[in-house]
Amino acid sequence: MPDVQAADLHRLARELLCATGTGAAAAHVIADSLVNANLAGHDSHGVLRLPAYLEGARQGHVIPGAVPELVSVNGATAIVDAEQGWGQPAMWLATRAAIDRAREHGLGAAVVHNCYHIGRVAPYVESIASEGMIGQAMANAAPAVAPFGGRARVMGTNPMAWAVPRAAGAPPICLDIATAGIAEGKLRVARSRGFPVPAGNVVDRDGRPTTEPGDFYAGGALLAFGGHKGSGFSLLAQFIGRGLAQMDPSGYDGPRGVNGPFILAIDIARFTDLDQFRAEVEAQCEAVTCCLPAEGVEAVLLPGQPELAMRSIREREGVPIPDSTWQELQALADEHGVTLPNERHAG
Amino acid sequence: MPDVQAADLHRLARELLCATGTGAAAAHVIADSLVNANLAGHDSHGVLRLPAYLEGARQGHVIPGAVPELVSVNGATAIVDAEQGWGQPAMWLATRAAIDRAREHGLGAAVVHNCYHIGRVAPYVESIASEGMIGQAMANAAPAVAPFGGRARVMGTNPMAWAVPRAAGAPPICLDIATAGIAEGKLRVARSRGFPVPAGNVVDRDGRPTTEPGDFYAGGALLAFGGHKGSGFSLLAQFIGRGLAQMDPSGYDGPRGVNGPFILAIDIARFTDLDQFRAEVEAQCEAVTCCLPAEGVEAVLLPGQPELAMRSIREREGVPIPDSTWQELQALADEHGVTLPNERHAG
Repeated sequence: MPDVQAADLHRLARELLCATGTGAAAAHVIADSLVNANLAGHDSHGVLRLPAYLEGARQGHVIPGAVPELVSVNGATAIVDAEQGWGQPAMWLATRAAIDRAREHGLGAAVVHNCYHIGRVAPYVESIASEGMIGQAMANAAPAVAPFGGRARVMGTNPMAWAVPRAAGAPPICLDIATAGIAEGKLRVARSRGFPVPAGNVVDRDGRPTTEPGDFYAGGALLAFGGHKGSGFSLLAQFIGRGLAQMDPSGYDGPRGVNGPFILAIDIARFTDLDQFRAEVEAQCEAVTCCLPAEGVEAVLLPGQPELAMRSIREREGVPIPDSTWQELQALADEHGVTLPNERHAG
Repeated sequence: MPDVQAADLHRLARELLCATGTGAAAAHVIADSLVNANLAGHDSHGVLRLPAYLEGARQGHVIPGAVPELVSVNGATAIVDAEQGWGQPAMWLATRAAIDRAREHGLGAAVVHNCYHIGRVAPYVESIASEGMIGQAMANAAPAVAPFGGRARVMGTNPMAWAVPRAAGAPPICLDIATAGIAEGKLRVARSRGFPVPAGNVVDRDGRPTTEPGDFYAGGALLAFGGHKGSGFSLLAQFIGRGLAQMDPSGYDGPRGVNGPFILAIDIARFTDLDQFRAEVEAQCEAVTCCLPAEGVEAVLLPGQPELAMRSIREREGVPIPDSTWQELQALADEHGVTLPNERHAG
């Protein structure tokens, strides 16, 4: 398993995307999205997506050269059309629109129509928080998750995320989760290694609980996190994604990379003094991190802390890329005449 | 355990509240809140709260005669001050403000300062949905819940709720949950009956998992639903409640009825045709309710369906009131010269 420096992965992603008709600016933000996910330790949203992205382009599910457009602004709301292009540039346009709307009205929200995969959601809401606002986002996705009590794939793994600003200088606190109990990417890894997955995350095609990852691929379904409560949150993303972002991926057969995203910015200064808010956040963070850990737990962490810790390691040591992913990237690089970065073998 | 008709409970609640200095209109909406919770089957937020409410008034934690005020409107945002009075009238003022702001700007949000207990959250977001909007609300509360991995009470049971409109004529779909895995009220019931609670909901004072409800009252803590994900949602309510609604209940010793609420309205018509949205919601609802149930499950339900079913039973048959609650209400009625309703004994 080679360790590859983030800058090298970024260049590889950019060049592969450009080679398939993506504009330079768009390729840059998509590479940001993928490599930042790797740095955060969420490899399921990292460069391993590149082969699927390029295959999506080949099959016409995404148009690499499309340019997203802000099609309407109406009070605190905005609509972006991704024009069947990459999700990340469209989502950044929506994020910017939400921030601008919130600056003017106190709140701002945007949806994206005709949107491909938006990548990991954290960076969008973090950028809202870095402007002194509270960011929230959600999206629906292709069916993979059974509603609470069910056995069939009705909902997507539907991400939800929020971020709030901390005291000046500190990165925002960000929660970014799939409303599925386990990411499909982690299931894939478990299957390839022959490992079981934790109980409570998958039912087989007959609706029986299972820990065998293969049962999902044989017609089973993922379960939402947190029983009926998590299933209910997923359903909200489903209603909003389909109803407001006009994305109905239920016709798709199996997980493909489309999202119906909604993003919200709340301008803190309309409610209270921003520095006062930051101080209250710090006080609350201290209450969490100073909390005595439960038996067997080393320390109580804030959302996003594991990602920050992983980032500092991987910025230094590089990103470990599984051999199978590396081989796929190698093949794509050969095909498109792109030079593969030097790797540094681990161990 | 007597069964009492909803109208009789409503009159009792109104008269007791008026007898302690609450205005008639406020007493009416508080009685609505409590009795509707009973009808929905959520007795933890029903008339069993009356003794605590009246005790709160006696101790000066809430000023029954206070009148909430819309203190500021700023673009899409509004701030209500409950003036240390009852939470329900203040929360209705905030709900109305959020709807009005959303009508004007496309989005609207309000917080409530100096707020007592707001009761069950569902009615507020349902009223937003009944105006053709998406409603979302959250609130912090007195510490009872350990952050993920911790053992101490840092967060409240922090409710979160959403509602979306269905096809015309049908009641909105509403999810209304505590971000604690189990409501403190249910723990109280389990303790009084000597029952264990399901695993994964409580840690004892030493941070060990327990199913013994008494361990919570002996210095333990509740756990959030859904592991680190649910804990992360609870933390958002904590940041917003403390930072935006300026409610810091962490100084309180044990659960008391104060909330720092935030409510949001999203005007669907700014994004899409409302009837089209309703149709998409219906299609999604059908996908859920037609989903094959998992093994051992009778039917897949939408959020709010159990509450609607319970409501139709209790509207007909009355609300069963535990003897201990009935005795407390009897004593309060005697004290305040209020006539207790006729009860109809069950069984």
